[in-house]
Amino acid sequence: MLRTTTCGALTLQNLGENVTLCGWMQNSRDLGGMTFVDIRDRYGITQLVFNMNDNADLCAGARSLGREFVIKVSGTVVERSNKNLEIPTGEVEIKVTALEILNAAKIPPFLIEDKTDGGDDLRMKYRYLDLRRNPIRNNMILRHRMAQSVRRYLDALDFIEVETPVLIKSTPEGARDFVVPSRMNGGEFYALPQSPQTFKQLLMVSGFDRYFQIVKCFRDEDLRADRQPEFTQIDCEMSFIEQEDILNTFEGLIRTLFKEVRNYDLPEVPRMQYADAMRFYGSDKPDTRFEMKFIEMNDIVKGKDFPVFDNAELVIAINAKGCAHYTRKQLDELTDFIKRPQIGATGLIYLRHNEDGSLKSSVDKFYNEEELAKWSAACQTQTGDLVLVMAGGTDKVRKQLSELRLEMGTRLGLRDKDKFAALWVLDFPLLEWDEETERYHAMHHPFTSPKPEDIALLDTDPKNVRANAYDMVVNGTEIGGGSIRIHDRTLQSLMFKHLGFSPDEAQKQFGFLLDAFEFGAPPHGGIAFGFDRLCSIFAGLDSIRDVIAFPKNNSGRDVMIDSPSTIDEKQLKELKIKTDL
Amino acid sequence: MLRTTTCGALTLQNLGENVTLCGWMQNSRDLGGMTFVDIRDRYGITQLVFNMNDNADLCAGARSLGREFVIKVSGTVVERSNKNLEIPTGEVEIKVTALEILNAAKIPPFLIEDKTDGGDDLRMKYRYLDLRRNPIRNNMILRHRMAQSVRRYLDALDFIEVETPVLIKSTPEGARDFVVPSRMNGGEFYALPQSPQTFKQLLMVSGFDRYFQIVKCFRDEDLRADRQPEFTQIDCEMSFIEQEDILNTFEGLIRTLFKEVRNYDLPEVPRMQYADAMRFYGSDKPDTRFEMKFIEMNDIVKGKDFPVFDNAELVIAINAKGCAHYTRKQLDELTDFIKRPQIGATGLIYLRHNEDGSLKSSVDKFYNEEELAKWSAACQTQTGDLVLVMAGGTDKVRKQLSELRLEMGTRLGLRDKDKFAALWVLDFPLLEWDEETERYHAMHHPFTSPKPEDIALLDTDPKNVRANAYDMVVNGTEIGGGSIRIHDRTLQSLMFKHLGFSPDEAQKQFGFLLDAFEFGAPPHGGIAFGFDRLCSIFAGLDSIRDVIAFPKNNSGRDVMIDSPSTIDEKQLKELKIKTDL
Repeated sequence: MLRTTTCGALTLQNLGENVTLCGWMQNSRDLGGMTFVDIRDRYGITQLVFNMNDNADLCAGARSLGREFVIKVSGTVVERSNKNLEIPTGEVEIKVTALEILNAAKIPPFLIEDKTDGGDDLRMKYRYLDLRRNPIRNNMILRHRMAQSVRRYLDALDFIEVETPVLIKSTPEGARDFVVPSRMNGGEFYALPQSPQTFKQLLMVSGFDRYFQIVKCFRDEDLRADRQPEFTQIDCEMSFIEQEDILNTFEGLIRTLFKEVRNYDLPEVPRMQYADAMRFYGSDKPDTRFEMKFIEMNDIVKGKDFPVFDNAELVIAINAKGCAHYTRKQLDELTDFIKRPQIGATGLIYLRHNEDGSLKSSVDKFYNEEELAKWSAACQTQTGDLVLVMAGGTDKVRKQLSELRLEMGTRLGLRDKDKFAALWVLDFPLLEWDEETERYHAMHHPFTSPKPEDIALLDTDPKNVRANAYDMVVNGTEIGGGSIRIHDRTLQSLMFKHLGFSPDEAQKQFGFLLDAFEFGAPPHGGIAFGFDRLCSIFAGLDSIRDVIAFPKNNSGRDVMIDSPSTIDEKQLKELKIKTDL
Repeated sequence: MLRTTTCGALTLQNLGENVTLCGWMQNSRDLGGMTFVDIRDRYGITQLVFNMNDNADLCAGARSLGREFVIKVSGTVVERSNKNLEIPTGEVEIKVTALEILNAAKIPPFLIEDKTDGGDDLRMKYRYLDLRRNPIRNNMILRHRMAQSVRRYLDALDFIEVETPVLIKSTPEGARDFVVPSRMNGGEFYALPQSPQTFKQLLMVSGFDRYFQIVKCFRDEDLRADRQPEFTQIDCEMSFIEQEDILNTFEGLIRTLFKEVRNYDLPEVPRMQYADAMRFYGSDKPDTRFEMKFIEMNDIVKGKDFPVFDNAELVIAINAKGCAHYTRKQLDELTDFIKRPQIGATGLIYLRHNEDGSLKSSVDKFYNEEELAKWSAACQTQTGDLVLVMAGGTDKVRKQLSELRLEMGTRLGLRDKDKFAALWVLDFPLLEWDEETERYHAMHHPFTSPKPEDIALLDTDPKNVRANAYDMVVNGTEIGGGSIRIHDRTLQSLMFKHLGFSPDEAQKQFGFLLDAFEFGAPPHGGIAFGFDRLCSIFAGLDSIRDVIAFPKNNSGRDVMIDSPSTIDEKQLKELKIKTDL
């Protein structure tokens, strides 16, 4: 090795040792006849000291170093007079006897510090420099540790990691598939997998029993906030199990991850019906770090000639504890918040439970004190609380109040990034109606099993068929989801029928899976976790971008390598395709 | 769980226990009033017993089961009278009290047995059934264990696994790139990586210090024997190291793998210069399970008026120990072997060292006994040995004799699949001349560092510039290779110049890497192992196909899912491409 140790290793234990370090020049300070240089590598920072009186040439050499020069130094470990107890190496420094520049460096376009002056675009273009910064590099180390921990946990439970193919087949609902023209099979295309779903089910048919894979998946869709065209899943499947076994196994995985990687004791994960999640939180992924459940007010508020409530399908409220002091301005802010186009509500009604015990609402014209007392009772207010009420169509108003609830949670400091609340959401609907195509789509995917007791409803009341499907939610973010699968050809064919596939289409696209079901498919089910998202939650980040080493921007471009790019005519010709702009 | 234990777990320890098993009906035998059924899962096979007298319905149910039916049975563990000591569960059986068919099965198209009657095509089409067979499934388990072992070893040495992107940029030498049209950036394409080479070098520039990844790579080339369009690499890179450090670190990896996965004590890995490998074995990946080195005969055989030798650039021999008894027919076979078009030799000359001590050659007309004694001395023959001699142009005859050497090794039983000989081949040439394009190509890749002492030769004698490049060879197969990289922009630009890139081309294609080298690139180097190949060697297989769960055939097709396939016009339109057949 060029070095004897790293820049994060030396302490008072090493006094007097002769060492050689390699790393980057972080910064330097001249102090009288002395020069102090911080040398940095992945493991830490160590202070180097040069003395003009001891060796003028060497010290002059140190003074000539620019930021980010790559250097190799040898010297003796000595005790620092001016100790820095914030870093493990802060009690020692190296009295340098030899200095070699391994590579010079131009001045970087932004500061390589925890707080940088670089804007997003510049940092993306020079991603390899941004990755030098501790916060970004630490995210990658966290990600590595999480992957190791996942593999250790699953391996110990007899799960086998099997690599499934990346060059697969495009599906009819494949608008989101990336495709790959085949040179050897001109005019034909592979597709990149949106998930290894069918392959993992085939592995169950093969008797693999317990499969997992940490695997890249691909989706060619418009990149809304915080999506990436390539993303990573922890993909898992088990045979001879029931939903309960999946929940226990993967609750164990997540709790183990929290313990091993964050040293966080995640309690047993509570379970909630999808219907209850919608009813109490207006969301299938409620943030349960705080309560603030919806209170249904229809029975209390209707029939008092207030048309907003009388005409609404649903009137719901939340109790914002301790917010009765909100000023007119603050209340207006909240109203503006819910009127933003992405939320689209029309108005907000409030009830203050004042410190003096009185109740004051924004609709006092319609509701007298006695009636407001009923509101207060329903919402279990105490003095100082603020009730926020919204009204409208059921689905719409729930979504709107969900947004307001999250906003209030944030304002009240109830969404601490170092606190974690996990939740299983169970019994999702099997189907959802798609307005655009005017047909039902699988809410999860077409291989999800309906609850046996609901199968009869498929013909009569498809909207109310529940699936054996489950999501895990952490802090209001869906981190994983899965289902018990259909393992019976007849039921699978029935599902395809209800999804609007003709038997021919179903056979053409999924014939191999339908065929496989005839050769002895075991009962099976599984789950997939969004690994990028999971890492970002563990790292306390809002975006997945900084847990990905080389992410793409919102136009799907890698601005560092300048990709995608045009390819030459010869290559297009070989692939038997033409661009058609 | 549907089961209380697996089909591979029960022994005499469990007598009397009530258990529930799930699995596939492997086979059944009726014996008087009894029916014996073998139930199989991934973990093993357990015998079930049904008795017509105890429960006629149950027994009739058992008799109605077809092969590969998926069943669930409950019963009591009892001792077998007729024990099968070849399997761990062979001393017990289950006296069944309940039987449930979880899924029926059609008769599979081939036998699900260790030795199957299925041909290659049928097994590929029904790969999910082929994967049920022990030999194939065991390969996948082996592969999983190897991946786990690799990760454990590297993690313990502070290597971080970092995922690099799959959607990258096509390179000018990109005839082998798979490309992916970008919908969001019409007319532009991503490429799938042939390796993460540039990204891992950027991670070194980022200070990651030690990186690895078990990663899918892609190459769109004609699939000669045993290539796959997608394959998996163990990709590694280290900073602040010299070649010696890489060799030690990854020799450690391979030896650990052999120990942990095969319980095989691989000795320290010998090292050989590329030049010596070519000289003594005619190959840069010699099979060193056996010696049989080439002996150069020019000095001994030339000048005796035998034109074949006199006109040859090189005359070389191998000593096939104990083969003097070879018959005319056997010798003709060898001659036919080397005359096959893929080897293309014109003739083979031999010298027998007979049991009576006499020497007999096929060219006695030109060489007398005294001269043949010199041959014998040079080849250190003993009685019973057979010397095989070939002549021709140096490169060509070495390749030809290398093939003959391997053939003789096979015939002599010297290539045992359970014996492993590893070798480092060092100091590869930096460049190789390409007849077709009439220019030099990088033998390894354009980022490989020349040996510092040879840089001066780049202008005067490029062919003889040696690289800091190394391959690891096991049993005559290259399992991995790597190099110390260039970390200096000036040297990298010089390399591109010698490879025929204009400065503009170099900047256009690799500008981001050249730029990165200016911001403080550390000295670094790495290696990549072909994981599929490594698994096949560990599994004792000649082909990589059966260590891949869902491989493609020689036309790059997945015949199971029928991919690649055509995609519809709407999708092509969105991607702004047309097929051009």
